[in-house]
Amino acid sequence: MTYDPDNIFAKILRGELPCHKLYEDEETFVFLDIMPRADGHCLVIPKTPCRNILDASEAQMAAVMRTTQKMARALMAAFDAPGVTVQQFNEAAGGQEVFHLHFHLLPRQEGDRLRPPGQMADQAVLAGHAEKIRAALAQM
Amino acid sequence: MTYDPDNIFAKILRGELPCHKLYEDEETFVFLDIMPRADGHCLVIPKTPCRNILDASEAQMAAVMRTTQKMARALMAAFDAPGVTVQQFNEAAGGQEVFHLHFHLLPRQEGDRLRPPGQMADQAVLAGHAEKIRAALAQM
Repeated sequence: MTYDPDNIFAKILRGELPCHKLYEDEETFVFLDIMPRADGHCLVIPKTPCRNILDASEAQMAAVMRTTQKMARALMAAFDAPGVTVQQFNEAAGGQEVFHLHFHLLPRQEGDRLRPPGQMADQAVLAGHAEKIRAALAQM
Repeated sequence: MTYDPDNIFAKILRGELPCHKLYEDEETFVFLDIMPRADGHCLVIPKTPCRNILDASEAQMAAVMRTTQKMARALMAAFDAPGVTVQQFNEAAGGQEVFHLHFHLLPRQEGDRLRPPGQMADQAVLAGHAEKIRAALAQM
Protein backbone atom coordinates (compact mmCIF):
# COMPACT_ATOMS: atom_id res chain seq x y z
CA MET A 1 0.00 0.00 0.00
CA THR A 2 1.41 3.38 -0.95
CA TYR A 3 0.85 6.76 0.66
CA ASP A 4 -1.62 9.05 -1.13
CA PRO A 5 -0.33 12.65 -0.82
CA ASP A 6 -3.87 13.96 -1.46
CA ASN A 7 -5.46 12.44 1.65
CA ILE A 8 -7.31 15.04 3.74
CA PHE A 9 -4.74 15.12 6.57
CA ALA A 10 -1.95 15.83 4.07
CA LYS A 11 -4.11 18.70 2.79
CA ILE A 12 -4.60 19.98 6.35
CA LEU A 13 -0.82 19.83 6.90
CA ARG A 14 -0.28 21.84 3.70
CA GLY A 15 -2.89 24.40 4.78
CA GLU A 16 -5.16 23.49 1.86
CA LEU A 17 -8.00 22.55 4.23
CA PRO A 18 -8.96 24.30 7.48
CA CYS A 19 -8.80 22.66 10.92
CA HIS A 20 -9.09 23.51 14.60
CA LYS A 21 -5.37 23.28 15.37
CA LEU A 22 -4.38 22.49 18.94
CA TYR A 23 -0.62 21.94 18.87
CA GLU A 24 2.33 21.67 16.55
CA ASP A 25 6.02 20.90 16.92
CA GLU A 26 8.74 20.01 14.44
CA GLU A 27 7.52 16.46 13.94
CA THR A 28 3.84 16.35 14.88
CA PHE A 29 0.52 18.20 14.45
CA VAL A 30 -2.71 17.95 16.49
CA PHE A 31 -6.22 19.06 15.58
CA LEU A 32 -9.84 18.41 16.57
CA ASP A 33 -11.80 15.61 14.93
CA ILE A 34 -14.78 17.31 13.22
CA MET A 35 -16.93 14.26 14.05
CA PRO A 36 -16.03 14.02 17.74
CA ARG A 37 -17.11 10.95 19.69
CA ALA A 38 -16.42 12.90 22.90
CA ASP A 39 -15.83 16.60 23.62
CA GLY A 40 -12.16 17.30 22.90
CA HIS A 41 -11.70 14.28 20.59
CA CYS A 42 -8.51 15.09 18.71
CA LEU A 43 -6.05 13.51 16.30
CA VAL A 44 -2.27 13.35 16.66
CA ILE A 45 -0.40 12.93 13.37
CA PRO A 46 3.19 13.03 12.14
CA LYS A 47 4.08 15.84 9.73
CA THR A 48 5.88 13.40 7.44
CA PRO A 49 4.03 10.87 5.29
CA CYS A 50 3.09 7.34 6.36
CA ARG A 51 -0.19 5.42 6.08
CA ASN A 52 -0.35 3.87 9.55
CA ILE A 53 1.73 1.88 12.04
CA LEU A 54 2.48 -0.75 9.38
CA ASP A 55 4.80 1.59 7.44
CA ALA A 56 5.66 4.25 10.07
CA SER A 57 9.31 4.64 11.04
CA GLU A 58 10.49 4.24 14.62
CA ALA A 59 11.16 8.01 14.70
CA GLN A 60 7.64 8.85 13.48
CA MET A 61 6.13 6.56 16.11
CA ALA A 62 8.28 7.98 18.91
CA ALA A 63 7.41 11.58 17.99
CA VAL A 64 3.69 10.83 17.75
CA MET A 65 3.79 9.07 21.13
CA ARG A 66 5.57 12.01 22.83
CA THR A 67 2.83 14.32 21.57
CA THR A 68 0.09 11.81 22.46
CA GLN A 69 1.29 11.80 26.07
CA LYS A 70 1.42 15.59 26.21
CA MET A 71 -2.05 15.92 24.68
CA ALA A 72 -3.58 13.27 26.98
CA ARG A 73 -2.53 15.34 29.99
CA ALA A 74 -3.77 18.58 28.40
CA LEU A 75 -7.16 17.06 27.50
CA MET A 76 -7.66 15.79 31.05
CA ALA A 77 -6.90 19.25 32.39
CA ALA A 78 -9.04 21.08 29.81
CA PHE A 79 -12.16 18.95 30.32
CA ASP A 80 -11.57 17.96 33.95
CA ALA A 81 -11.61 14.42 32.56
CA PRO A 82 -10.51 11.50 34.77
CA GLY A 83 -9.54 9.31 31.80
CA VAL A 84 -8.49 9.20 28.17
CA THR A 85 -9.15 6.53 25.53
CA VAL A 86 -6.69 6.06 22.65
CA GLN A 87 -7.72 4.42 19.36
CA GLN A 88 -5.67 3.85 16.24
CA PHE A 89 -6.91 2.11 13.08
CA ASN A 90 -4.81 0.36 10.43
CA GLU A 91 -6.16 -0.20 6.93
CA ALA A 92 -9.87 -0.20 6.02
CA ALA A 93 -10.59 -3.54 7.74
CA GLY A 94 -8.99 -2.10 10.88
CA GLY A 95 -11.34 0.90 10.81
CA GLN A 96 -9.07 3.41 9.04
CA GLU A 97 -10.75 6.05 6.85
CA VAL A 98 -7.93 8.56 6.23
CA PHE A 99 -4.65 6.98 5.21
CA HIS A 100 -2.20 9.19 7.08
CA LEU A 101 -1.12 7.78 10.48
CA HIS A 102 -3.28 9.18 13.27
CA PHE A 103 -3.99 8.43 16.91
CA HIS A 104 -7.45 9.33 18.24
CA LEU A 105 -7.45 10.80 21.77
CA LEU A 106 -10.79 10.88 23.58
CA PRO A 107 -11.18 12.58 26.97
CA ARG A 108 -13.54 10.48 29.08
CA GLN A 109 -15.86 11.15 32.02
CA GLU A 110 -16.86 8.51 34.59
CA GLY A 111 -19.61 6.33 33.11
CA ASP A 112 -19.89 8.26 29.83
CA ARG A 113 -20.49 6.62 26.47
CA LEU A 114 -18.77 7.57 23.24
CA ARG A 115 -21.09 9.22 20.74
CA PRO A 116 -21.79 7.19 17.56
CA PRO A 117 -19.32 7.87 14.75
CA GLY A 118 -20.09 10.13 11.80
CA GLN A 119 -21.86 13.06 13.50
CA MET A 120 -20.48 16.42 12.42
CA ALA A 121 -20.04 18.91 15.29
CA ASP A 122 -20.97 22.58 15.27
CA GLN A 123 -17.94 24.67 14.26
CA ALA A 124 -18.47 27.22 17.06
CA VAL A 125 -18.52 24.43 19.65
CA LEU A 126 -15.31 22.99 18.19
CA ALA A 127 -13.69 26.45 18.26
CA GLY A 128 -14.57 26.75 21.97
CA HIS A 129 -13.12 23.31 22.74
CA ALA A 130 -9.95 24.12 20.81
CA GLU A 131 -9.53 27.33 22.80
CA LYS A 132 -9.91 25.41 26.08
CA ILE A 133 -7.34 22.80 25.07
CA ARG A 134 -4.81 25.38 23.87
CA ALA A 135 -5.23 27.21 27.20
CA ALA A 136 -4.56 23.96 29.10
CA LEU A 137 -1.45 23.32 26.99
CA ALA A 138 -0.19 26.84 27.72
CA GLN A 139 -0.44 26.09 31.47
CA MET A 140 1.71 22.97 31.22
CA MET B 1 -2.06 7.58 41.09
CA THR B 2 0.60 5.10 42.06
CA TYR B 3 1.53 1.81 40.44
CA ASP B 4 0.22 -1.30 42.19
CA PRO B 5 2.89 -4.03 41.91
CA ASP B 6 0.22 -6.68 42.49
CA ASN B 7 -1.81 -5.96 39.34
CA ILE B 8 -2.35 -9.08 37.22
CA PHE B 9 0.06 -8.08 34.45
CA ALA B 10 2.84 -7.57 37.00
CA LYS B 11 2.04 -11.08 38.27
CA ILE B 12 2.20 -12.44 34.70
CA LEU B 13 5.58 -10.71 34.22
CA ARG B 14 6.86 -12.32 37.44
CA GLY B 15 5.57 -15.73 36.33
CA GLU B 16 3.07 -15.88 39.20
CA LEU B 17 0.15 -16.19 36.77
CA PRO B 18 0.06 -18.17 33.51
CA CYS B 19 -0.40 -16.62 30.06
CA HIS B 20 -0.24 -17.49 26.37
CA LYS B 21 3.04 -15.74 25.69
CA LEU B 22 3.69 -14.60 22.13
CA TYR B 23 6.86 -12.53 22.26
CA GLU B 24 9.39 -11.06 24.63
CA ASP B 25 12.45 -8.82 24.32
CA GLU B 26 14.48 -6.88 26.86
CA GLU B 27 11.89 -4.16 27.33
CA THR B 28 8.51 -5.60 26.30
CA PHE B 29 6.26 -8.66 26.68
CA VAL B 30 3.27 -9.78 24.58
CA PHE B 31 0.52 -12.26 25.43
CA LEU B 32 -3.03 -13.15 24.38
CA ASP B 33 -6.00 -11.43 25.99
CA ILE B 34 -8.03 -14.22 27.64
CA MET B 35 -11.23 -12.35 26.77
CA PRO B 36 -10.46 -11.74 23.08
CA ARG B 37 -12.69 -9.38 21.12
CA ALA B 38 -11.18 -10.86 17.91
CA ASP B 39 -9.10 -13.97 17.21
CA GLY B 40 -5.48 -13.09 18.00
CA HIS B 41 -6.36 -10.16 20.31
CA CYS B 42 -3.15 -9.57 22.25
CA LEU B 43 -1.62 -7.13 24.70
CA VAL B 44 1.76 -5.41 24.40
CA ILE B 45 3.22 -4.27 27.73
CA PRO B 46 6.50 -2.85 29.02
CA LYS B 47 8.44 -5.04 31.46
CA THR B 48 9.02 -2.09 33.76
CA PRO B 49 6.24 -0.56 35.87
CA CYS B 50 3.94 2.26 34.79
CA ARG B 51 0.14 2.63 34.99
CA ASN B 52 -0.59 3.99 31.51
CA ILE B 53 0.52 6.67 29.05
CA LEU B 54 0.06 9.35 31.71
CA ASP B 55 3.10 8.19 33.70
CA ALA B 56 5.04 6.14 31.10
CA SER B 57 8.55 7.31 30.20
CA GLU B 58 9.51 8.18 26.65
CA ALA B 59 11.69 5.04 26.59
CA GLN B 60 8.83 2.79 27.75
CA MET B 61 6.54 4.25 25.09
CA ALA B 62 9.13 3.88 22.32
CA ALA B 63 9.83 0.25 23.24
CA VAL B 64 6.13 -0.63 23.42
CA MET B 65 5.55 1.02 20.02
CA ARG B 66 8.41 -0.91 18.38
CA THR B 67 6.88 -4.15 19.59
CA THR B 68 3.36 -3.01 18.63
CA GLN B 69 4.51 -2.48 15.05
CA LYS B 70 6.21 -5.87 14.94
CA MET B 71 3.17 -7.63 16.40
CA ALA B 72 0.71 -5.85 14.06
CA ARG B 73 2.57 -7.27 11.08
CA ALA B 74 2.78 -10.75 12.65
CA LEU B 75 -0.96 -10.79 13.49
CA MET B 76 -1.88 -9.82 9.93
CA ALA B 77 0.28 -12.64 8.59
CA ALA B 78 -0.94 -15.21 11.14
CA PHE B 79 -4.66 -14.57 10.57
CA ASP B 80 -4.47 -13.40 6.94
CA ALA B 81 -6.01 -10.21 8.33
CA PRO B 82 -6.19 -7.08 6.13
CA GLY B 83 -6.28 -4.71 9.11
CA VAL B 84 -5.44 -4.18 12.77
CA THR B 85 -7.18 -2.03 15.38
CA VAL B 86 -5.19 -0.60 18.31
CA GLN B 87 -6.87 0.45 21.57
CA GLN B 88 -5.30 1.82 24.73
CA PHE B 89 -7.19 2.88 27.85
CA ASN B 90 -6.08 5.31 30.54
CA GLU B 91 -7.61 5.25 34.02
CA ALA B 92 -10.99 3.70 34.85
CA ALA B 93 -13.01 6.45 33.12
CA GLY B 94 -10.91 5.82 30.01
CA GLY B 95 -11.79 2.11 30.05
CA GLN B 96 -8.70 0.77 31.86
CA GLU B 97 -9.17 -2.34 34.02
CA VAL B 98 -5.58 -3.46 34.71
CA PHE B 99 -3.28 -0.64 35.78
CA HIS B 100 -0.09 -1.62 33.97
CA LEU B 101 0.36 0.12 30.59
CA HIS B 102 -0.96 -2.05 27.76
CA PHE B 103 -1.85 -1.65 24.11
CA HIS B 104 -4.60 -3.91 22.71
CA LEU B 105 -3.93 -5.23 19.20
CA LEU B 106 -6.90 -6.70 17.32
CA PRO B 107 -6.49 -8.38 13.93
CA ARG B 108 -9.48 -7.44 11.77
CA GLN B 109 -11.25 -9.01 8.80
CA GLU B 110 -13.22 -6.99 6.20
CA GLY B 111 -16.65 -6.17 7.63
CA ASP B 112 -16.16 -8.06 10.91
CA ARG B 113 -17.45 -6.83 14.25
CA LEU B 114 -15.55 -6.98 17.52
CA ARG B 115 -17.00 -9.45 20.00
CA PRO B 116 -18.54 -7.91 23.15
CA PRO B 117 -16.05 -7.50 26.01
CA GLY B 118 -15.87 -9.90 28.95
CA GLN B 119 -16.24 -13.28 27.23
CA MET B 120 -13.60 -15.78 28.34
CA ALA B 121 -12.11 -17.84 25.50
CA ASP B 122 -11.43 -21.58 25.51
CA GLN B 123 -7.83 -22.23 26.58
CA ALA B 124 -7.20 -24.75 23.78
CA VAL B 125 -8.37 -22.23 21.18
CA LEU B 126 -6.06 -19.60 22.68
CA ALA B 127 -3.15 -22.06 22.65
CA GLY B 128 -3.77 -22.70 18.94
CA HIS B 129 -3.86 -18.97 18.16
CA ALA B 130 -0.67 -18.38 20.15
CA GLU B 131 1.07 -21.12 18.18
CA LYS B 132 -0.01 -19.53 14.88
CA ILE B 133 1.23 -16.07 15.93
CA ARG B 134 4.58 -17.39 17.20
CA ALA B 135 5.02 -19.21 13.86
CA ALA B 136 4.31 -15.97 11.95
CA LEU B 137 6.85 -14.09 14.12
CA ALA B 138 9.46 -16.77 13.41
CA GLN B 139 8.97 -16.16 9.67
CA MET B 140 9.65 -12.41 9.93
